[in-house]
Amino acid sequence: MTPIGDLTQIPREISGISEKKCYICRQKPMTNKMSGYDSPIGKRLELLREELRREHLSAFIFPSTDPHQSEYTAGHWKGREWISGFDGSAGIAVVTQTSAALWTDSRYFIQAEEQLKGTEFRLMKERVAGTPSIVEWLGRELVDADDKEVGIDGMVASVAEVEVLKEDLKRRGGITVRTNFDPLQRIWKERPSIPQNPVVIQPVELAGEDTQSKLARIRQALRKQHADGMLVAALDDIAWTLNLRGSDVHCNPVFVSYLLIASDKATLFINKQKLTDEVRAYLKQYAVDIADYAEVGKGLRDYFEYNILLDPSEVSYTLYQQVTRNIVRGTSPIPAMKGIKNEREQLGFRSAMLHDGIAMVRFLKWLDEQIKAGEPQTEISVSEKEALRAEQPLYKGLSFDTIAGYEAHGAIVHYESTPETDIPLQAKGLLLLDSGAQYQDGTTDITRTIALGPLTEEQKRVYTLVLKGHIQLQLLRFPEGTRGTQLDAIARTDMWREGYNYLHGTGHGVGSYLNVHEGPHQIRMDWNPAPLKAGMTVTDEPGIYLEGRFGVRIENTLLVVPDQETEYGKFLRFETLTLCPIDKRPILSEMLTAEERRWLDEYHEMVFQQLSPYLDEAEKNWLREATLPL
Amino acid sequence: MTPIGDLTQIPREISGISEKKCYICRQKPMTNKMSGYDSPIGKRLELLREELRREHLSAFIFPSTDPHQSEYTAGHWKGREWISGFDGSAGIAVVTQTSAALWTDSRYFIQAEEQLKGTEFRLMKERVAGTPSIVEWLGRELVDADDKEVGIDGMVASVAEVEVLKEDLKRRGGITVRTNFDPLQRIWKERPSIPQNPVVIQPVELAGEDTQSKLARIRQALRKQHADGMLVAALDDIAWTLNLRGSDVHCNPVFVSYLLIASDKATLFINKQKLTDEVRAYLKQYAVDIADYAEVGKGLRDYFEYNILLDPSEVSYTLYQQVTRNIVRGTSPIPAMKGIKNEREQLGFRSAMLHDGIAMVRFLKWLDEQIKAGEPQTEISVSEKEALRAEQPLYKGLSFDTIAGYEAHGAIVHYESTPETDIPLQAKGLLLLDSGAQYQDGTTDITRTIALGPLTEEQKRVYTLVLKGHIQLQLLRFPEGTRGTQLDAIARTDMWREGYNYLHGTGHGVGSYLNVHEGPHQIRMDWNPAPLKAGMTVTDEPGIYLEGRFGVRIENTLLVVPDQETEYGKFLRFETLTLCPIDKRPILSEMLTAEERRWLDEYHEMVFQQLSPYLDEAEKNWLREATLPL
Repeated sequence: MTPIGDLTQIPREISGISEKKCYICRQKPMTNKMSGYDSPIGKRLELLREELRREHLSAFIFPSTDPHQSEYTAGHWKGREWISGFDGSAGIAVVTQTSAALWTDSRYFIQAEEQLKGTEFRLMKERVAGTPSIVEWLGRELVDADDKEVGIDGMVASVAEVEVLKEDLKRRGGITVRTNFDPLQRIWKERPSIPQNPVVIQPVELAGEDTQSKLARIRQALRKQHADGMLVAALDDIAWTLNLRGSDVHCNPVFVSYLLIASDKATLFINKQKLTDEVRAYLKQYAVDIADYAEVGKGLRDYFEYNILLDPSEVSYTLYQQVTRNIVRGTSPIPAMKGIKNEREQLGFRSAMLHDGIAMVRFLKWLDEQIKAGEPQTEISVSEKEALRAEQPLYKGLSFDTIAGYEAHGAIVHYESTPETDIPLQAKGLLLLDSGAQYQDGTTDITRTIALGPLTEEQKRVYTLVLKGHIQLQLLRFPEGTRGTQLDAIARTDMWREGYNYLHGTGHGVGSYLNVHEGPHQIRMDWNPAPLKAGMTVTDEPGIYLEGRFGVRIENTLLVVPDQETEYGKFLRFETLTLCPIDKRPILSEMLTAEERRWLDEYHEMVFQQLSPYLDEAEKNWLREATLPL
Repeated sequence: MTPIGDLTQIPREISGISEKKCYICRQKPMTNKMSGYDSPIGKRLELLREELRREHLSAFIFPSTDPHQSEYTAGHWKGREWISGFDGSAGIAVVTQTSAALWTDSRYFIQAEEQLKGTEFRLMKERVAGTPSIVEWLGRELVDADDKEVGIDGMVASVAEVEVLKEDLKRRGGITVRTNFDPLQRIWKERPSIPQNPVVIQPVELAGEDTQSKLARIRQALRKQHADGMLVAALDDIAWTLNLRGSDVHCNPVFVSYLLIASDKATLFINKQKLTDEVRAYLKQYAVDIADYAEVGKGLRDYFEYNILLDPSEVSYTLYQQVTRNIVRGTSPIPAMKGIKNEREQLGFRSAMLHDGIAMVRFLKWLDEQIKAGEPQTEISVSEKEALRAEQPLYKGLSFDTIAGYEAHGAIVHYESTPETDIPLQAKGLLLLDSGAQYQDGTTDITRTIALGPLTEEQKRVYTLVLKGHIQLQLLRFPEGTRGTQLDAIARTDMWREGYNYLHGTGHGVGSYLNVHEGPHQIRMDWNPAPLKAGMTVTDEPGIYLEGRFGVRIENTLLVVPDQETEYGKFLRFETLTLCPIDKRPILSEMLTAEERRWLDEYHEMVFQQLSPYLDEAEKNWLREATLPL
């Protein structure tokens, strides 16, 4: 799945408070479609301002995340979307008594402009010269305000964010911040309720490690950080720790809850109706008590150990204030554990990739035939054909909304086809298809750029440059301790020479039947201190996007595995998990080195050997052709 | 010059306080030989302990730097060397009433073991499992001490270091830190005085920008950081700002001083006898007052503006305490300015490189002839032949002590031949030669590894891998904003595939007739947020070292220059400044790509074209042969 987001060197926090983008890649997310708006934006602003006046607040800030600092949230927490009408994944709305503005980044300028049209909201283009930060803007807007107090719901803003906001606003004429008030509770009448979907057990045969062992490892890590317990707010960390899965967030098999880990027991704060008797019994055996989701504040107040670890970027400001014991501010140890897949999880990934590959081959063959036969297909119609995945065993759903961008749409990195933008596919040019699924044994994420017919020389050249970068990364061997930041340029070297670049990361971790974006590692230009370790999954997805013309991205999911050990230490390399041919038709093979050609031929042979036993004769013939050496 | 130092991912501050290594590359430095010891170590410790008893201190810490946080210091500040006898560049000595220990890193284990032999000092091997940090060790050693107070001279320790030390020792049984006492003043009878060498003006024709303009730019940068002034402690930053040079530190053309910049004037704190009337008049025209070096504390106390910027990693703890106005803690703006060479400085570099190349060619030809003729040469004798550089115009001295390591010695990255270690060169194997000079128009730094006769296949293979990395970096083109951390792996990719690596950085900035190690940028595995910018110099020096056998390093100094501008932004590339053939005899040319071969042939042709007009017929013939296409 596309890791997009601005990779330039400009400081990230231009808006004064950080936006909640993907923490892996600040990134194109799948939209989690809300039901239609229940009243016009103007009316909503009126209601909000009435509330603000009553509460003596001169402004309110609406970030785009939830109490768990999720990248993707359930509808209940789409308050910024409700108040502004802008439904991009990244954006912060700020409303005063007399003005309203929405900050978003370049990926969303066009969309935001359209969606804000006719409203009071002024679009604030982040990282564009002259755009004020939220704090600067508030400083100016509130210069004559009676109440120099700004509200933000401390439940949906992290400790780290609110602390910076408070500090910065204080310097702007002594503006204070109030965090214990959520106007949406009163004015958002048709606010979706907090999801109540059932929780299911992820069998240990698939998880590879039981909850007892995971809790023991977490507690050991906490002791190393001199902490007796911790509050886990991140939904995927809770799901991983407890080997439970849910369906509260579109495409993310997580469930809304908190996990308070103490030294000898733990408490899961969750709406109890989500739990079957089986799950209750299951949790009991690991000394995991159950309490109501709304009781988490009380749970923190009642927490009895000497101290507690809280990750300031994970825990909400409001909950942080509830703690009465000593707080150890530190990084949660869970992402680093979850990121390394155990043997059983690796096996699961291989199985999921096999099934995903079979579905992809059937899809690609079908697409070829449709285009050749001149059947009327569009971006949306081919996206729907991805339903071929649903035929595969252990299929649970998509891991993100499919990106199918034909020609110029392929250059919009966060493109999602809608009935308004959908266009018919023709027997020429490039279709960029980025898709993936949740299988119970693994999560997949693959991008292929497909030639639907004749291509321009430029398209072939750009395609081959992207392919070279993609292959160069997979050819790498590197010492233990290497961070993704050090490797990112390997995928870019060839395109840089010709003046191309892409402003998103090259790779992100992929969950094991969990979120398609996972940390703690990543391969991108920005610094990330988490080294790549054996057992980690990571995508390899360079791209080139020519605005208004076409886009190319090629993505496999890789597994980090041990390589040789020499007097210079232990080395690692990548093993390719994704099993699907890479379209050879656009390749200018003279641009590939012998090594790159060899890699492609060997990869294709491996794909054929692994997938062909599961294919019928016609499919096998198609795949044979698609995987023949260059 | 070798950028060595530990590049592994282990946190740097294992000893509790950071050692003062090269801030560019934590790195092998040139030793700045002290006069012989004036009393045995045992006697010195006795004197020290007497002082400590009288002052009720239970231990004293001796770091390895000076009040200016210099990488290389004058003899006056070699207190750690005096108290312990260990003269490596990196090390911290700690002495209690009953014990003494010295922390250093792997580069110095053998040397330290030898130099500490027969003393009380126990060698503490940094980053080796089981080695306590200084703070841990002190916690244990002082568990029963009456006076739980540790001393460190706050003049030679930075604010950042002392703050961490205080915090960490407090947690170890409440040990406190005293910083206002330097026992060396009483017990080091033959302590060298602070250098009194004269200061000279670096002509603006060579500096390319006058001091008025530099001060204006610094003040502008300070205003951006909301500061009215700053204290400059870094000696090379002072030399750059004032266009003055000195000779107080071996190989570094700097002079001991402080520069206090206020909004409309500045004060240079310096021993006045170092200044001629000419320099005084010169400084006066830029409103730079002169005060005695020892008056800097008073200068800070008397500083009259609203606030002052102090860089906590540059300014000593003691001076920081003198400030009575508001302190803005921030990064000094000067290294970022100094790092970008203006046009005149670039021209100067080209001239210096031309002269350095002429000297190098004469040297290499002479060496070839000596070896062929069977003349008795050794590591030291060929190092001395580097005097050929002294014949060149504007030559001022070496930029660091030459590293000449034959065969197994070449694998010791920080090797410096002494009469005890010197070995004769034979007509076989590899000689690693890393050398450079100070010319008034530029500083040079070059490494060549030279085949003295037949080589093993392994030597050729390793040499070619290093050469490939060296070339790959120079072939790069990259977008503006790229940091060295992102590019470092490019020089390692090929050797990584074969299980080789080097544990030092790939490149550092080089001063303009200033220190051979300069920031703010670098090319290395560790994160450094300073992007590479057009006008910066940077070395390209990958290596492979096979312990006990041989070492290979190939180093050119490069200039970052603008490349193309595309819709993806502005790109940069490297231009090679160093003009000297790279020995072709060890190359296994089938291991090079066509592009690498082309680079080498073109580089060699350029070297020939530029140098040959200045060579006599015999030299020209030698160079023609050495630069013929592969």
